[in-house]
Amino acid sequence: MNIGVLGTGTVGRTIAARLVELGHSVIIGTRDPAKTLARTESDGMGNPPPSVWLEQNPKVKLGSFAEAAAHGEMVVNATNGDGSLDALKAASEANLNGKILIDIANPLDGSKGMPPSLFVSNTDSLGEQIQRAFPDVKVVKALNTMNAHLMANPQLLANGDHTVFMSGNEVAAKAAVSELLRTFGWEDIIDLGAITTARGPEMYLPIWLRLWGALQTSLFQVKVVRKAGN
Amino acid sequence: MNIGVLGTGTVGRTIAARLVELGHSVIIGTRDPAKTLARTESDGMGNPPPSVWLEQNPKVKLGSFAEAAAHGEMVVNATNGDGSLDALKAASEANLNGKILIDIANPLDGSKGMPPSLFVSNTDSLGEQIQRAFPDVKVVKALNTMNAHLMANPQLLANGDHTVFMSGNEVAAKAAVSELLRTFGWEDIIDLGAITTARGPEMYLPIWLRLWGALQTSLFQVKVVRKAGN
Repeated sequence: MNIGVLGTGTVGRTIAARLVELGHSVIIGTRDPAKTLARTESDGMGNPPPSVWLEQNPKVKLGSFAEAAAHGEMVVNATNGDGSLDALKAASEANLNGKILIDIANPLDGSKGMPPSLFVSNTDSLGEQIQRAFPDVKVVKALNTMNAHLMANPQLLANGDHTVFMSGNEVAAKAAVSELLRTFGWEDIIDLGAITTARGPEMYLPIWLRLWGALQTSLFQVKVVRKAGN
Repeated sequence: MNIGVLGTGTVGRTIAARLVELGHSVIIGTRDPAKTLARTESDGMGNPPPSVWLEQNPKVKLGSFAEAAAHGEMVVNATNGDGSLDALKAASEANLNGKILIDIANPLDGSKGMPPSLFVSNTDSLGEQIQRAFPDVKVVKALNTMNAHLMANPQLLANGDHTVFMSGNEVAAKAAVSELLRTFGWEDIIDLGAITTARGPEMYLPIWLRLWGALQTSLFQVKVVRKAGN
C-alpha cells in the first residue's frame, strides 16, 4: 500500500521503517524537506540527523507534509502533538479527505514541568480536535500508549502478549487499521469506541510517563487482563 | 490491626469485609451513622442498605468518620472523590495525623456527561489535594484503578497476575501499605514515586471507564508487562 507518514522523529522513523519492511511504499513528510535534509546534528537522544537516517533507510522517501499525504492511501500522524494540527493543515484537506489517518500523537505539554502534562484532556482530546478540524478524514487514534519500537514490533516484548487500543468513529476504518496492526504483530487490539474515547488512551500518558520513571525503561507495556469472552 | 474505613459505598464495604476476614478490627465510618442506619433503599446497583449489609457483616462496626479514624492505626479513604476532603475534615486532623491514609478515591465528575470526567487532573490530583490539606498524614494513593472486588481480592482474576500502583511521599508508609496489599493477594505492586505521581493512576480512570464500556464488564485489570529486572 502507499502510506504517508507525517513526522521525522523517532515515532515517524520507526513506523516508516517497519512499513517499508512490510513491503509498503512510504513517503515520510516534514514541513520543509530541504531544511530537514540540511540538519547535521543528532537529536540529543542519539538518533542521527534525517539525512543519515534516510541513507540507512533508502526505501523511505522524504517529502513535504503535502507530498506524504498525497502519496498515502492511508496516512500516519507521527508529529509532536503540539504541532499536529499545523502539520495536518500543511498536508491539506485535499490530500487527506476520505482517507484513514492513524493518529499516534500525544498532547504533551513540557512547559509546566517534567514529566509533561497534557495541553488538552479530560473533556476533549487531540484525536477529537483533529477529527473536528478534518471532518472528512477517518481519524483512528492508535499506538500512542507505548514506545515507538513496541508500536512497530510488539513481539519485542513478551511475545507480543500486550494490548493496543483504537478509537474512531468509523467501524470500517478501524477494521482496516486493525488489519495493518496485525501485520506489525499485534494480536490484542481493543476497540474503545468512537473518537471521543481517545480521551482514555491520551490520559493514560501520565501513568505511562511515571512508569517509565519507576521502571527505568520505556520497554514496557500493559496487557488488559480479562476473562475469556470479554 | 485496628483499621478505619471511611465510606459505606461498594468500595468501603468490600475493603472492610476483606479486612475483618483477614482478622483486623474495623470501624466503617459515615457522616451521620443514625441517618445511614435509617436508610432502607438499596443503592440502585442492587446493593442492600447499610443496615442490612451490617447485619450480614457483624464484625464490621459502624461509626462516624471521626470514630472510624480514631479507631484506625491505619485509615482507608473509600469515600466518593468529591466528598473526600469534607469527610477527612469530619474525621479530623487530630484523629488522622501521623497515620497512614490509603487513598482509594477518584476525582470523578459526573456533571459533564458520561462516562465521568475528572474534577482535578493534569497538573494536580486528589491525592495531592488530600496530602496538602493534611500535611501530617501519610497519604498513600493505591487501589483506585480497578473494581472493588479486585482491590480486595486480586486472585479473582488471572490468579492475581496483574498490577497495582502506589504513590506516596514516605517510603516506610508505602512499605506498610505494600505489606497489607500482599495479605489481600497482591503480588505485583509498583511504587510510582511521590504523591505527585498520583496524577498517573487518577488519569488512568478515563481509559478504565472506556474499557469497562468496551469489555462490558468491570472485572478486568492491567498487567504491566516488562522484562525481568524492571
